[in-house]
Amino acid sequence: MNNSTSLRVRLPVLVLLMEVVFLGLFAGFVTYDDNANAKFQNNETNPMDNSLYRDYPFFADVQVMIFVGFGCLLAFLRLYGFSGMVFNFLTATFTIQWAILMQGYFQFYSDGKIHLGVINLLNAEFACAVVLISFGAVLGKTSPVQLLVMALLEVPIFAVTEWAVLKYLKINDAGGSILIHLFACYFGLGVTFVLYRPSLNDGHVKEVTSYQSDILSLMGTLFLWVFWPSFNSALTLKGDDQHRAVLHTFIGLSSSTMTAFALSAVFNKRGKLTMADIQNVTLAGGVTVGASVDMMISPAAAYALGIMGCTACFMGYRYLTPFLARHFRIQDQCGIHNLHGLTGLISCTAGICAILMANEETYGPSMYQIFSHRAPMEGDPKLLELQQLIPGLRPGLGRTAKEQAVYQVAAIFSTIGAAAVGGVLTGFALKLPCLATPSDEFCFDDELFFDVPSDFLSSSLAF
Amino acid sequence: MNNSTSLRVRLPVLVLLMEVVFLGLFAGFVTYDDNANAKFQNNETNPMDNSLYRDYPFFADVQVMIFVGFGCLLAFLRLYGFSGMVFNFLTATFTIQWAILMQGYFQFYSDGKIHLGVINLLNAEFACAVVLISFGAVLGKTSPVQLLVMALLEVPIFAVTEWAVLKYLKINDAGGSILIHLFACYFGLGVTFVLYRPSLNDGHVKEVTSYQSDILSLMGTLFLWVFWPSFNSALTLKGDDQHRAVLHTFIGLSSSTMTAFALSAVFNKRGKLTMADIQNVTLAGGVTVGASVDMMISPAAAYALGIMGCTACFMGYRYLTPFLARHFRIQDQCGIHNLHGLTGLISCTAGICAILMANEETYGPSMYQIFSHRAPMEGDPKLLELQQLIPGLRPGLGRTAKEQAVYQVAAIFSTIGAAAVGGVLTGFALKLPCLATPSDEFCFDDELFFDVPSDFLSSSLAF
Amino acid sequence: MNNSTSLRVRLPVLVLLMEVVFLGLFAGFVTYDDNANAKFQNNETNPMDNSLYRDYPFFADVQVMIFVGFGCLLAFLRLYGFSGMVFNFLTATFTIQWAILMQGYFQFYSDGKIHLGVINLLNAEFACAVVLISFGAVLGKTSPVQLLVMALLEVPIFAVTEWAVLKYLKINDAGGSILIHLFACYFGLGVTFVLYRPSLNDGHVKEVTSYQSDILSLMGTLFLWVFWPSFNSALTLKGDDQHRAVLHTFIGLSSSTMTAFALSAVFNKRGKLTMADIQNVTLAGGVTVGASVDMMISPAAAYALGIMGCTACFMGYRYLTPFLARHFRIQDQCGIHNLHGLTGLISCTAGICAILMANEETYGPSMYQIFSHRAPMEGDPKLLELQQLIPGLRPGLGRTAKEQAVYQVAAIFSTIGAAAVGGVLTGFALKLPCLATPSDEFCFDDELFFDVPSDFLSSSLAF
Repeated sequence: MNNSTSLRVRLPVLVLLMEVVFLGLFAGFVTYDDNANAKFQNNETNPMDNSLYRDYPFFADVQVMIFVGFGCLLAFLRLYGFSGMVFNFLTATFTIQWAILMQGYFQFYSDGKIHLGVINLLNAEFACAVVLISFGAVLGKTSPVQLLVMALLEVPIFAVTEWAVLKYLKINDAGGSILIHLFACYFGLGVTFVLYRPSLNDGHVKEVTSYQSDILSLMGTLFLWVFWPSFNSALTLKGDDQHRAVLHTFIGLSSSTMTAFALSAVFNKRGKLTMADIQNVTLAGGVTVGASVDMMISPAAAYALGIMGCTACFMGYRYLTPFLARHFRIQDQCGIHNLHGLTGLISCTAGICAILMANEETYGPSMYQIFSHRAPMEGDPKLLELQQLIPGLRPGLGRTAKEQAVYQVAAIFSTIGAAAVGGVLTGFALKLPCLATPSDEFCFDDELFFDVPSDFLSSSLAF
Repeated sequence: MNNSTSLRVRLPVLVLLMEVVFLGLFAGFVTYDDNANAKFQNNETNPMDNSLYRDYPFFADVQVMIFVGFGCLLAFLRLYGFSGMVFNFLTATFTIQWAILMQGYFQFYSDGKIHLGVINLLNAEFACAVVLISFGAVLGKTSPVQLLVMALLEVPIFAVTEWAVLKYLKINDAGGSILIHLFACYFGLGVTFVLYRPSLNDGHVKEVTSYQSDILSLMGTLFLWVFWPSFNSALTLKGDDQHRAVLHTFIGLSSSTMTAFALSAVFNKRGKLTMADIQNVTLAGGVTVGASVDMMISPAAAYALGIMGCTACFMGYRYLTPFLARHFRIQDQCGIHNLHGLTGLISCTAGICAILMANEETYGPSMYQIFSHRAPMEGDPKLLELQQLIPGLRPGLGRTAKEQAVYQVAAIFSTIGAAAVGGVLTGFALKLPCLATPSDEFCFDDELFFDVPSDFLSSSLAF
Repeated sequence: MNNSTSLRVRLPVLVLLMEVVFLGLFAGFVTYDDNANAKFQNNETNPMDNSLYRDYPFFADVQVMIFVGFGCLLAFLRLYGFSGMVFNFLTATFTIQWAILMQGYFQFYSDGKIHLGVINLLNAEFACAVVLISFGAVLGKTSPVQLLVMALLEVPIFAVTEWAVLKYLKINDAGGSILIHLFACYFGLGVTFVLYRPSLNDGHVKEVTSYQSDILSLMGTLFLWVFWPSFNSALTLKGDDQHRAVLHTFIGLSSSTMTAFALSAVFNKRGKLTMADIQNVTLAGGVTVGASVDMMISPAAAYALGIMGCTACFMGYRYLTPFLARHFRIQDQCGIHNLHGLTGLISCTAGICAILMANEETYGPSMYQIFSHRAPMEGDPKLLELQQLIPGLRPGLGRTAKEQAVYQVAAIFSTIGAAAVGGVLTGFALKLPCLATPSDEFCFDDELFFDVPSDFLSSSLAF
């Protein structure tokens, strides 16, 4: 606990510098979108048709997930509760601002300006989820300065990947299984691979929970659980698509939760429940239904996906995480490879199956809305026909199911590749001096970066 | 803490068995309802008119109540916080899945299929509230296996009762005073009657709170308080009915809360406040306004109901609960008879008064929407007249106010009867061997079913 | 801890007396507004157009802020967690009821009745926020009886001020910077000025936090942070105005949060973060954007306001609060002058600038909706012209930008004046005997007013 981890200069310099940059970019390039611009309101605009009322309820739910849900979930260590919640708060706030600008440039840019509405904030919170998931891999081993640098690098890499995949590969990924969960996971693994600390493989004296920290973390789980249907459905098409996304997510989470309890008991030698399982593995179903969340997969398929995702996630925690740490130098602190990687891969596979099985018999003509790239191309007479049934249907690329599936596979591999490479490079950046890296001894310890109250010591002594 | 309470085989076998059953039933019988089915979308469907947008905001609020609110509220014991929150999580998840199927069969079944939308989930969460209330009677004395068996039996008994009362007696019960609160209460009392443990009548060394557990429980209360208006109004008619339901619930809770503080101070010998009162009795008003929540009872009546319900609830905790335990073998751990039984009875009485006083002068023609069974029968010329004022008014049964009141009374007695009998039978089922029943000594103790962190012991020693 | 602070008679007498008064006033003067009245529903009423669906989502978010957010935030002291959360609960409930009546009389009164809808509840929750902010100045030094008396006096003074300012000065104050934050702040300072306790200037042995209380308080912060956009936008015009209010609040909070981290580190001698900063100063941006929250100030201006407000707030905590306590007898326990006063003044200044710079080029004709008093007067031909572009535009007062700015200044000074005088008078009322004032020794101590669990003592001993 010496000068090398003092935040007194490092953190303010980085934060204030970035604030100046952000302020400059906001001033130069950010304006309101049409729904937030007073000038575009006239006698043809109905205030209640404003996009705010479609997006804000989902945004508010995702806010709770990001700030309260993630924050509490990451506060599961006895002596690292302040850090878990507070670094989550700082990183999230920073990431969202940066993502508004980065995604704005790639996705909401026209006439030399980024056009800002609540929909941008919602997209930025998804980018924020990406960074927070990656954060889970290095929790306890990184300073807030390192976390900000990680966010600083991860956001543009993510924004470029997202833009490239959406623009060139044109995939279906409503719940973000590929772009959020797989990207975040392999980026985080890349970072933690570089930040490998051999001494931590034998455990750390402070890497323990307390009764209160376990309860706090469970509250985080519950907030994530409760609002996950909003997360998975926030960016789907409105109407029946969003409706299905809510149903599938809820069903997937439910079957996943039950499975987690069963596995937790059966793999415990004394036949007891383990809080870590209930805090993490229960959520696996929410990720696993992601890629096919808006498709007509049937409620039973969502149920089965929840069971499968949960089982993979549980086994991952049990066998794969220690294996990766020992043999591949990948110390995955919160087990993001189980909760986001394995489940994400299952989810993508399920999504591809759902794409291959999609047909007009099941979906009716609105198949060409959900799988918009399968819609006939401009000029195709079938397009006009469909537009009579579904007004406002946009021309697509006339892809077949198999073609779409191939693009999904391409997206999976290129996303994983970009994420892993980006993560490794970011890891090297985080090894730069001056980023206040904690020593091994002070990992998982709030005292390094916080003024702690006097009873913190008594918690420490209670080992 | 021996093999008889190990969950290693019992819990997984039960859970996985039920998952297979649920998955089979989902696969065989559950499909999407029209609002969630892509096939039914066409040029006449406006996505924003999807039922999702009417039901989901209320569903999300109820989710927070069930998983966070109930969970925290039930974690009020010092050494039983894990169990309170986690068993609530498990039981809720299990119950909702089972209720989707059971209520689906009785209420949403057509063409050989259960049609699933968010409205089913919302109904299932109400069934879930029923089971969780009943759980309150046996908190600390039951294993998770017993709780699942209880849910397994309670859900079908509830679903049949609900279906029979709604189909044959056709009552008004917007806030669920009869079907939710009275059913849950008397079912729970039936169970706990059979599970009577004489030794617990003298108190239990672990039946104490801690500073943190009291605060956690209060957070649960606050989440329930805040979203209770959504709970009571979730299933009312849309428009002014739902608006009144929100108003009445809020007013009832407010007056109930103030009353709880007054009574807590006046009955405490040293003139101090008791946390248990503030955690429980403040909520009495939410139940008490239930049966008349959508009627034109006037804001003042909601206010008075809050005071009355709170007083009854408080006196129940003080005098009736110990009395029932000593003389009737009914050990009501969380005092559900006070918070749901007594208040439910007051609520039903108020509902009957409101029904008897309802007239067209106060309600206008929309009286026949709220009291739909009082609407004229098919073919009655008055029906056509009313349908011009209120388009879409459905033909009713032409009941008079008094007739409706009689049906309400019949519903109260038959619901209580069905619940009590069902509860007693369920209680006997829970006494079967192999359900991991905790011994008296290990009641109210997380250590029996959880791997606990090392500081749990220090909590134990702090007596 | 003697009879002078027993609540046994004082609290129940006050509460029950007020309940009788409230019940009488509800019975005599409160009826449903048109949107909640069954009688006003007919074939021209679409249930989904009910005002409930516009107001309730924002109301629900504000509910979480008031009861959970404020409650947890105020529970930051180690031995005063029960009091912080519970007195917040009691005061809030009491205030809302009283505000419904008081604001109802001044703002929703017609035909001899107060017309009640969710919009009244929403307004009452804003009045409640006022009282809870003022409560922050005297936290730990007041009995619940004193808090109720404070609410009893503050609500009518606030309601009159609000009514007079809105009716006679006619200002723009969408986020409530003047009427909520400045009023609450200077009222609270007035009260605490009179309740000055010299001995507390040297600190108090119980005025410390604990690890758990810091985390609890941070949860409160996060709930306030997450829903603040709903708070600031709840009472704006629907449509683009509300959309901008959400955007500005979110941006202001984000930049304010980052700034708070930077300042916290730079001013800490050991280069660590201080939880109190993160709990309070991060929120400054939400207040600072308030007065101009619905105007076309540009996202960059919201960003800059967040930084400015945060800096002022931080410096206030560091230098001004101790200075006021030492030299002006103003002991501002939670630093409301920093979080609501200084930020409120910056906000008002920004609002005035925004008003002065507003023009039709930026706003289009809807400028006359946002700045409704600048709309042409009845009979002005320009009004008809504008009404063709913006149907439903109401005639205004034809004020110029400068005139409007002058009225804003007048509103600021008169609000501060009314609040300060009202606060001082209320302070004298709170010094009346029989209000159970805690002695200096028992400030910040739950044990004075609560039955505490047995582990409370061990917390006490841990000094």
